[in-house]
Amino acid sequence: MDETIKRDDFAWFMKIPTRWIDNDMYGHMNNARYYSIYENLIMTFLGPVNGLDTGTGAIRCFTAENGCRYYDALKYPDVIDAGLRVARIGNSSVRYEMGLFAEGNDNIASSAFVVDVFVDADSERPTRVPDNFRQVLEGVMLPQSESNS
Amino acid sequence: MDETIKRDDFAWFMKIPTRWIDNDMYGHMNNARYYSIYENLIMTFLGPVNGLDTGTGAIRCFTAENGCRYYDALKYPDVIDAGLRVARIGNSSVRYEMGLFAEGNDNIASSAFVVDVFVDADSERPTRVPDNFRQVLEGVMLPQSESNS
Amino acid sequence: MDETIKRDDFAWFMKIPTRWIDNDMYGHMNNARYYSIYENLIMTFLGPVNGLDTGTGAIRCFTAENGCRYYDALKYPDVIDAGLRVARIGNSSVRYEMGLFAEGNDNIASSAFVVDVFVDADSERPTRVPDNFRQVLEGVMLPQSESNS
Amino acid sequence: MDETIKRDDFAWFMKIPTRWIDNDMYGHMNNARYYSIYENLIMTFLGPVNGLDTGTGAIRCFTAENGCRYYDALKYPDVIDAGLRVARIGNSSVRYEMGLFAEGNDNIASSAFVVDVFVDADSERPTRVPDNFRQVLEGVMLPQSESNS
Repeated sequence: MDETIKRDDFAWFMKIPTRWIDNDMYGHMNNARYYSIYENLIMTFLGPVNGLDTGTGAIRCFTAENGCRYYDALKYPDVIDAGLRVARIGNSSVRYEMGLFAEGNDNIASSAFVVDVFVDADSERPTRVPDNFRQVLEGVMLPQSESNS
Repeated sequence: MDETIKRDDFAWFMKIPTRWIDNDMYGHMNNARYYSIYENLIMTFLGPVNGLDTGTGAIRCFTAENGCRYYDALKYPDVIDAGLRVARIGNSSVRYEMGLFAEGNDNIASSAFVVDVFVDADSERPTRVPDNFRQVLEGVMLPQSESNS
Repeated sequence: MDETIKRDDFAWFMKIPTRWIDNDMYGHMNNARYYSIYENLIMTFLGPVNGLDTGTGAIRCFTAENGCRYYDALKYPDVIDAGLRVARIGNSSVRYEMGLFAEGNDNIASSAFVVDVFVDADSERPTRVPDNFRQVLEGVMLPQSESNS
Repeated sequence: MDETIKRDDFAWFMKIPTRWIDNDMYGHMNNARYYSIYENLIMTFLGPVNGLDTGTGAIRCFTAENGCRYYDALKYPDVIDAGLRVARIGNSSVRYEMGLFAEGNDNIASSAFVVDVFVDADSERPTRVPDNFRQVLEGVMLPQSESNS
């Protein structure tokens, strides 16, 4: 993913307002905060929006790898349009690709990926992506996802 | 302030959606996060909403004291209705009183106060609350504020 | 508690180094971070230091009220000497009083109190402070605690 | 970088104790917190340890890209041994490579990279890595850094 990605390259969006504390000493949103924003996007899509249990149930999602690029500084009080797509669903893992746009701005401010592994809550060992998750994740796959990752 | 405070006891509201990371190991919004929410309420009221410069200008607001009561646990994915009033404006300080309500629930979940001191950005010494701040702050004073504080 | 409190007024100390992100846009440790520092002090005293289970066990500690005063700004890269005492142990609650000092400085930078309620993890209803907690908490009560609170 | 990286593959270490709030709802250190730990490692190496001004001076470091792999969950109350090396110094950028180890454990728990761009504080445009930074950064380059990145 790079700066050429457009809003249309994502399948699902939510609005996330920044908070005053998101800015760090440099007056921009701190880089670690981006990851909290991306995490919130994924977890909100899975849980509150699609009714999947990612919390206290038998299945948990652990992050194996993630990464982020910063093209243009977001900062409080921006409202963020956060976009999501699923690039790959493996046996026990999923690759999310995401982008953040300042409200009213079509240039992408940041792109990121997260590889989550589904684990059994008790054993903490990888487990097959359950069918109900698989169905929800497939709903936000885009034809071009793989080639851009 | 206590559990009997109502929505009508506040003069200005904004909506603040919780984020997944706001919850701590106990599955509720962490107590320190409440203070970030309250801070965001004050700073958004002053800055983006009323155009006052609380950032890089000549005047900064430093917190001298704050406190919070927790009546009912807020937690992700709650959307918070955050209410604000000003209880007292002194020569160089202001006392904010605030309350948080889960959207759709009229029982207060948490109340808090913050005493901020206005300081000169260079000297970091207290300075008189400027007239433009004073005017904005007076706009959210309520007749009953002082007696409930 | 006020600015006259000394290091000797606390019964147990730990060192907590600040992190770069603890500072906010004003270049000082953010007020909400103080609460995370105080929380870390209490939880480390109870858990890792004294072997009490505050995590996934049958007993959890929920904060009912807390408050903090800020006398002198702490900021990264300060190392904090964080001091703790217990002021009161009730049937199902405990009142902690704490202070933060910059390493090498005997003037208190911040003082705080936290009232925690012990709850049953399943019902989330208040429960009697268990004897093993009570014993640990009594170990950091000071004769003068009550009168200064 | 991968799981085979050893402590010897890093040139400089500091200890960073975890805090109770670093754990998220899953009881492990939250992925965004890793980035705050890595940031703290870089900023502490540059500022307090080597006396470089990364704060209010003429030069600031903005992150262009970062990424992290998670091999083994760190969690409070772990003390982290955080290791740093510099893999590349460009005209206006630097690539840091880092690893986190739980104290007393020689298996790497997480590895990460950060690409920082040096910018002029006023214009926020890239600027040449200053000589005093360059000298400090070269001090933690390792012969094998480039090939492992």
